[in-house]
Amino acid sequence: MTSLRFVFLFLLISFSASAQKDYKLWLQYNTVTNPTVASQYKSNLKGIVVLGNSETIRIAEKELKTGFSDMLGNIPEIKSEVKGEYNIIVGSQSNLNAEIKNELQSDFDKINNEGFIIKSISIKNKKQIVITGKNDVAVLYGVFHFLRILQTNKSVKNLNIADSPKTNIRILNHWDNLDRTVERGYAGFSLWNWQKLPDFIDQRYIDYARTNASIGINGTVLTNVNANALILTPQYLEKVEALANVFRPYGIKVYLTARFSAPIEIGSLKTADPKDPEVMNWWKNKSAEIYKRIPDFGGFLVKANSEGQPGPQNYGRNHVDGANMLADAVAPFGGVVMWRAFVYSEHDANDRAKQAYTEFQPYDGKFKENVIVQVKNGAIDFQPREPFHPLFGAMPKTPLMMEFQITQEYLGFSTHLVFLPKLFQEVLESDTYQKGKGSTVAKVVDGTLYQNKLTGIAGVANIGNDLNWTGHPFAQANWYGFGRLAWNPYLDSEVIAEEWLRSTFSNDENFIKPVKDMMIESREAVVNYMTPLGLHHIMDTGHHYGPGPWVSNLSRPEWNPTYYHKADKNGIGFDRSKSGTNAVSQYAPEVANLFDNLETCPEKDLLWFHHVSWDYKLKNGQTLWNGLALKYQEGVNQVREMQNVWNKAEKYVDSERFNEVKMLLEIQHKEAKWWRDACLLYFQQFSGKELPERVEKPTQTLEYFKSLKFPFAPGNG
Amino acid sequence: MTSLRFVFLFLLISFSASAQKDYKLWLQYNTVTNPTVASQYKSNLKGIVVLGNSETIRIAEKELKTGFSDMLGNIPEIKSEVKGEYNIIVGSQSNLNAEIKNELQSDFDKINNEGFIIKSISIKNKKQIVITGKNDVAVLYGVFHFLRILQTNKSVKNLNIADSPKTNIRILNHWDNLDRTVERGYAGFSLWNWQKLPDFIDQRYIDYARTNASIGINGTVLTNVNANALILTPQYLEKVEALANVFRPYGIKVYLTARFSAPIEIGSLKTADPKDPEVMNWWKNKSAEIYKRIPDFGGFLVKANSEGQPGPQNYGRNHVDGANMLADAVAPFGGVVMWRAFVYSEHDANDRAKQAYTEFQPYDGKFKENVIVQVKNGAIDFQPREPFHPLFGAMPKTPLMMEFQITQEYLGFSTHLVFLPKLFQEVLESDTYQKGKGSTVAKVVDGTLYQNKLTGIAGVANIGNDLNWTGHPFAQANWYGFGRLAWNPYLDSEVIAEEWLRSTFSNDENFIKPVKDMMIESREAVVNYMTPLGLHHIMDTGHHYGPGPWVSNLSRPEWNPTYYHKADKNGIGFDRSKSGTNAVSQYAPEVANLFDNLETCPEKDLLWFHHVSWDYKLKNGQTLWNGLALKYQEGVNQVREMQNVWNKAEKYVDSERFNEVKMLLEIQHKEAKWWRDACLLYFQQFSGKELPERVEKPTQTLEYFKSLKFPFAPGNG
Repeated sequence: MTSLRFVFLFLLISFSASAQKDYKLWLQYNTVTNPTVASQYKSNLKGIVVLGNSETIRIAEKELKTGFSDMLGNIPEIKSEVKGEYNIIVGSQSNLNAEIKNELQSDFDKINNEGFIIKSISIKNKKQIVITGKNDVAVLYGVFHFLRILQTNKSVKNLNIADSPKTNIRILNHWDNLDRTVERGYAGFSLWNWQKLPDFIDQRYIDYARTNASIGINGTVLTNVNANALILTPQYLEKVEALANVFRPYGIKVYLTARFSAPIEIGSLKTADPKDPEVMNWWKNKSAEIYKRIPDFGGFLVKANSEGQPGPQNYGRNHVDGANMLADAVAPFGGVVMWRAFVYSEHDANDRAKQAYTEFQPYDGKFKENVIVQVKNGAIDFQPREPFHPLFGAMPKTPLMMEFQITQEYLGFSTHLVFLPKLFQEVLESDTYQKGKGSTVAKVVDGTLYQNKLTGIAGVANIGNDLNWTGHPFAQANWYGFGRLAWNPYLDSEVIAEEWLRSTFSNDENFIKPVKDMMIESREAVVNYMTPLGLHHIMDTGHHYGPGPWVSNLSRPEWNPTYYHKADKNGIGFDRSKSGTNAVSQYAPEVANLFDNLETCPEKDLLWFHHVSWDYKLKNGQTLWNGLALKYQEGVNQVREMQNVWNKAEKYVDSERFNEVKMLLEIQHKEAKWWRDACLLYFQQFSGKELPERVEKPTQTLEYFKSLKFPFAPGNG
Repeated sequence: MTSLRFVFLFLLISFSASAQKDYKLWLQYNTVTNPTVASQYKSNLKGIVVLGNSETIRIAEKELKTGFSDMLGNIPEIKSEVKGEYNIIVGSQSNLNAEIKNELQSDFDKINNEGFIIKSISIKNKKQIVITGKNDVAVLYGVFHFLRILQTNKSVKNLNIADSPKTNIRILNHWDNLDRTVERGYAGFSLWNWQKLPDFIDQRYIDYARTNASIGINGTVLTNVNANALILTPQYLEKVEALANVFRPYGIKVYLTARFSAPIEIGSLKTADPKDPEVMNWWKNKSAEIYKRIPDFGGFLVKANSEGQPGPQNYGRNHVDGANMLADAVAPFGGVVMWRAFVYSEHDANDRAKQAYTEFQPYDGKFKENVIVQVKNGAIDFQPREPFHPLFGAMPKTPLMMEFQITQEYLGFSTHLVFLPKLFQEVLESDTYQKGKGSTVAKVVDGTLYQNKLTGIAGVANIGNDLNWTGHPFAQANWYGFGRLAWNPYLDSEVIAEEWLRSTFSNDENFIKPVKDMMIESREAVVNYMTPLGLHHIMDTGHHYGPGPWVSNLSRPEWNPTYYHKADKNGIGFDRSKSGTNAVSQYAPEVANLFDNLETCPEKDLLWFHHVSWDYKLKNGQTLWNGLALKYQEGVNQVREMQNVWNKAEKYVDSERFNEVKMLLEIQHKEAKWWRDACLLYFQQFSGKELPERVEKPTQTLEYFKSLKFPFAPGNG
């Protein structure tokens, strides 16, 4: 009776704490309900010994306690020293006793400074589990990994894990403005409450740090790349310092965006010329000022001479001059400069996709060693699908870091369920052939291809002050997946999806399998209903919400969708082949030839590289027009199937999150049809052909779709 | 052992659900820990019988279940009919059986349509408790009141409550813009996610409605009084409709702000002249369109010809013309027009405090019967203290509704702990003497002074998408207290504070007493450290954050603090006596004389009505200068004492909320000193006198305080 009543009460508490589930992300620590698993855990995990006394170690201990009490209903005995067996021994290498240190020597040789070891060992015939690393943050990573083992109901017997992150800088880029609006933010507004900082520490800052630490993220750029110089004034640096103090024990460094014209705007100088001694001095002093407050400050992220941002070119200098000047300023303190390669000139009539390569590739080898060039995954701008950026592999002497966009600027905001790790994986697995077969983007990014020491992956955050952090419950998976891939760019997105589902919702196999498949499928779905067959950037203007293939009146030609799809009576697509803009030539010859040849160009990239006749025969025998229309329809069908899958998941999910996802999928379905109908009606004007039979007929006119306006769409920067 | 372990687990769950406590406001439903009380509840509350089947009744039932399971650990047996004794019988009058109906006839005669009865009765010698009212929403109010009895650990024996709201319109005014910024909002951004509406119903909408229903709020104006006409377009009305559907079962009507120029902006008319037949027709059609979607739409709130908003005066018409035209449009559907009296002309050099009265009083009796004039509590603008607005009592033939500001525009944003019901009570208790002694503002507002049928109280909401809704945990008490006073303008603020503390934190007497005293004291503290002795509107420009008594360069004279304090060598204060602007003459003679005479004018209002010499002797024997300085110091001391009280409350409060309040009180203390030092240094220039001994010396210069800038202060509309 008592135990029954306990279960009953527990359910009720869970019920009223439903909003909390949304908030807790993948750290739900759900009760282990499988009795075999629970019993294995209870018999193998009987004590906890925590060695060391740093704030980080205290956090690791608290996390273990929370995990155990939530998942297993009790906390193993906390011991001050190793006594008996089946203990979890938690501490950094220097805090382990000689016997254990010895036992793990070969494991320590395998890991880097941030890597951890989780190992079952036997000492004096007593079984123990050690969670360790070379410092306390590494130990914390190990603890989170260990808890993930419990969360995913894996065995804790014979553990033998030695895992290190493959990149140095695993970082979120927040495009957060000082007024708390977030450029391309769809999950509310900025977490950073500048007005109440530095004296009010919002619990969310702590939860943010904890959550990021759980997936190994070790850096955060607090401010928008379209930067405001005020962040570098003492009034704001005091606030940044407060955040850095919160994040530090979680192993997270703070970075800021540097507005290139800051010496003028807040420093009263007349110029921001990077070769001007006063300017150089100003940045050196500013850096010293920052490091005095924040000794482990990470460095600067810079968007310069791009989309109206000031930069070295305003003074007849180039990106190398600008980046190196800043690099010199932070070098004495161990800081880095992340310099973005996202540039395209309003004065260059050439193919926008070529411009970043054209401008940056010749700089290879010219940057200081604490500069890393941040390159978007594709040459245009975070589209549902892009071929990998040609700079990857093309700058052997320059560290390049990947810039992914976690926030769904072009992929349905926080309304559409799109599992982005599938997209990220596609990019990372792409073979650049720059050092022969197998020269994948992942190898460029983790530095193994050219032995770069400085490596990194950045993700434009999808995090806001929505109660569930990311707007869409499944957008949490994109934050999670980004972190996991930043740690290990070779991880399979299916593995990530499964980990996330188990940690976030349920370990029930009947739930996992179909919902995982749904997640994996979701990325191809969004490509199909938005931009199939290599189409790109046909979103509506400014806010990028919904279709706008007809838009042709913007001041810069390369902002117009018509620039990208080039639909006409003869066909559709952007000819980037040798006979076109020859963008293909920016890739290694093997890749260039593949893309250049209409026969070998993957159909998923077809209209990216070729202007193709409406009657062109696709591999499935369909004409291009019919094939395009059927792809749009397939996207809609896929969303419908996602709805079916989710509806069957109801019994495995709390009602609040179930309903949220259900409502969002309904909107996604509606909007997938909107995309299909608007695009096909528009393109039909050029093809002059009927829709194939299996494509549903539009229920609105093209004029209707063109008339839609969204004056307050969020995130419009 | 089992029970011990249960307690342990429970504590842990509570711990990890800490953020949830912030979110749950006063509906914590904490476990009843007092064994005598718990035992009384268990023996007197054994069954629940719910009669009726509306959505509202289902909500009431669910609320009872949640309350019981959270507070008492079990839910009384749910019965389909009255069997046995000690049942709680829940249902509207028409659903009660004849016997009970009979028994309660005299109670039903006492209540109005929204009133409820909670009564212990005995039928066939069996004891029962009935919760009823004339409709289901009234029953829901009764259920919430009953749960409040449990939350505050009061007896459930011999209940005999018949309670009706004293006003018709108990409404929140959200100054929320369509881009989700909130004018004068300090708790994040707007709850209304227009982009995802109508198809995504955020759980917060439901929780918002539930919370408001729990205190009897029955209306909400979704949009800013500085209005955007787009809210009246079909694209937005569809979203408003979705919110109305969520709120309806909770008894909450939706209202919108009407931009007076909407017929031009979204209706393609050439004018918005209220006498133009096309304009009249446009508003009639627009109203019909709204009511087709939302049959119980409440009506419009209008800010016209005030601070740049368009209005009838743009067309040579007056407020009556404008209000009556809109009133005609909504009258066929039972809608009302709330027309704001907050006006002051940039072309009127006269005392701003007089202008609303001067302009509106002559309109008495000229408004249509579904117009209610919304008057701010004071004649200037939501200051820490203002004498009551002279319009109250001065328009016997016109319904006047009170406009309070719950959001702390001038009272420290969401950083300062200020318990506003104390302020509200002071206003409501003020005697206008307009129908002789006892003609209190409360009697104007509840309609009893002049037998007005339409009555109401509006509060400018302090609600945003912060996790805890209001930014400061204690700002929740201001939302709560506003609702309670809107229901009953005669409630004592101490009673409200105690109810709120018990429902929100703890029933422990050792906690209640000191913290309640702290809340009550907090209002006088903010007056003392910001604007003692009748000073007003000396906040810094635009954002109103921090002191700015020196500001004198704004384009409109009455926007400048110097306009309000008029400090000079001779003294300080605004002479509104008969020898000054004669603003006192707008009050009834008894009140006018009281204020006019320096000897009888309450010292709390001294500098509101008089320009007083620095050497003037206050009642305590101090000179004005010394007295003023000591008041500023007293404010700081009071905040320090609040900190002491709170520090002692640690053991009664969860750590998260405890720390939040602690951090905020530290900021409040810092800012109280800032106010004191900045104001005294500034005024000292005129008084030319030393600070009295008990006043702490400033640690910064006046120039420093003047140099402070807050470019991204929130809520700056």
